[in-house]
Amino acid sequence: MPSPGPGQMVCRTVYLSLDPYMRGRMNAGASYAKGVELGAVMGAGTVSQVVESNLEGFTAGDFVLSENGWQDYALSNGALSDGRRMRTLQPDLVPISTALGVLGMPGHTAYVGLLDIGLPKPGETVVVSAASGAVGSVVGQIARIKGCRVVGVAGAKEKCDYVVDELGFDACVSHRSDTLRNDLKAACPDGADVYFENVGGKVFEAVLPLLNLFSRVPVCGRIANYNLTELPAGPDRTPALMGLVLVRRITVRGFIVFDHIDREPDFLRDVAAWIRSGTLTYREDVVEGLENAVSAFQGLLQGKNFGKLLVRVSPDPTLS
Amino acid sequence: MPSPGPGQMVCRTVYLSLDPYMRGRMNAGASYAKGVELGAVMGAGTVSQVVESNLEGFTAGDFVLSENGWQDYALSNGALSDGRRMRTLQPDLVPISTALGVLGMPGHTAYVGLLDIGLPKPGETVVVSAASGAVGSVVGQIARIKGCRVVGVAGAKEKCDYVVDELGFDACVSHRSDTLRNDLKAACPDGADVYFENVGGKVFEAVLPLLNLFSRVPVCGRIANYNLTELPAGPDRTPALMGLVLVRRITVRGFIVFDHIDREPDFLRDVAAWIRSGTLTYREDVVEGLENAVSAFQGLLQGKNFGKLLVRVSPDPTLS
Repeated sequence: MPSPGPGQMVCRTVYLSLDPYMRGRMNAGASYAKGVELGAVMGAGTVSQVVESNLEGFTAGDFVLSENGWQDYALSNGALSDGRRMRTLQPDLVPISTALGVLGMPGHTAYVGLLDIGLPKPGETVVVSAASGAVGSVVGQIARIKGCRVVGVAGAKEKCDYVVDELGFDACVSHRSDTLRNDLKAACPDGADVYFENVGGKVFEAVLPLLNLFSRVPVCGRIANYNLTELPAGPDRTPALMGLVLVRRITVRGFIVFDHIDREPDFLRDVAAWIRSGTLTYREDVVEGLENAVSAFQGLLQGKNFGKLLVRVSPDPTLS
Repeated sequence: MPSPGPGQMVCRTVYLSLDPYMRGRMNAGASYAKGVELGAVMGAGTVSQVVESNLEGFTAGDFVLSENGWQDYALSNGALSDGRRMRTLQPDLVPISTALGVLGMPGHTAYVGLLDIGLPKPGETVVVSAASGAVGSVVGQIARIKGCRVVGVAGAKEKCDYVVDELGFDACVSHRSDTLRNDLKAACPDGADVYFENVGGKVFEAVLPLLNLFSRVPVCGRIANYNLTELPAGPDRTPALMGLVLVRRITVRGFIVFDHIDREPDFLRDVAAWIRSGTLTYREDVVEGLENAVSAFQGLLQGKNFGKLLVRVSPDPTLS
């Protein structure tokens, strides 16, 4: 545990967030940002507790939304990587872990990706991949709240059941099904107006024929591709994709939540209200111990987690 | 020549427009619209002269922008396929042939595709494929007028020279060059903020690495693919495209001018003014005789035309 100098504080990590985007940081090349250097601390969003502070506004015992990465303790000056100040959490309002999930980056991603990029209208059909995941589960529930027909794609049967029974999607199909294309078609009798893309691969291919005129495809993630070391075998399907985009006047748009920080107040207000009213729910998959972060992250890329994946690095003092 | 019944008129075709989108209508499957039936008249925009009219508002001798297709004479009720009324042209203002090109569907396509889908900002770099063509030439000139750096892609050296010397593009590279990727990179020192897609194929592949953060790709056409009977050999490059869209937050958006009819008054006002002031110019490639329409159309798909391709089906009485 380091000691804080002037203008610094030291925090203990309570929860470490594991998110698919991190896979890109583990490559030598740049994805959104430069890759993490060998030997450096792997970055990550964290919920931490202040242990000792020489920094005005932060007091020992405070819980903060931080970016302390895959480590037990971290020194910081209270700033996040985008220059904003770490946010002090209020454990009496909502569980502190939610600051990494439904009320954090994944929830914010779902909110702006669906509402600002996907532009759903009541009565439209929204298809969401990775539907039981941290982002997809919020996308689908907001789409339901906005009056859309919502169809999820997930893997295991228990996830599909959860998506329909607990999250209130109209349907959920399994990407493990041999009849994925037909299952999806049956679940989308009026085609798809929004496809919220989290995964790529065969799910993307199965959704394409269903995309309606003027449909929107917010591209949030492509987890099926993150471990690819070379392009898949042919034929080259790019002309088919682009031809469809042309003829159906589809909008395909990549986005990252960091470009939409101005929407955070709206996101926090709306999603917190939906949680309080019981309109929107969430599920967390908590792994104990930093030593299990690597295997948990590998599992995330294989869809083994069920809900927002967190590592509890040290005991959560707010849990009695 | 048919005889007009009540509420009908008969028109003689003067100019027939040949446009790449027609290739899709020659397939059995639907593209934008159903394919043309075997034995039916191939559809096309035309400039025609009224021969005999039983239709109020149209008088023998009038020139009209019509959709009379690949034929010498046509009966009509004065309505276009979208329900609007045929537009009577004013030969004293501009050549009647321009109603099929720079002041017609291709010019309108360029206008809405660049301004409403491409959203260019002064100082940005706009790359245009098929740069000497009916659409590309207008796209690039409007981009220049809007203060952008404009880079064209064309085939023959004379086209590239024309694009730079006559149309005022900042640069034009040839897609026939063995060093297309490097040529394009050298012409776009600050990358590309807008890529106006007319062609697909290797030009599309060459532009992709240059696309900047938040760049826009209006998808107007994919002429390189129109004659494909099967997908090209692999690998499947879709994951590379979608990964780029994600990481660079690119917007890829297909569009068709028919969805943007409300912008026609703006388009006509602006482009006509630019033509009158000499700010914007155009070039037509006129083939004589309906019997040459097929070979001219085949040439269009191979890039053999130089400027907006028209067939003069009968003599143009406005040319002295």
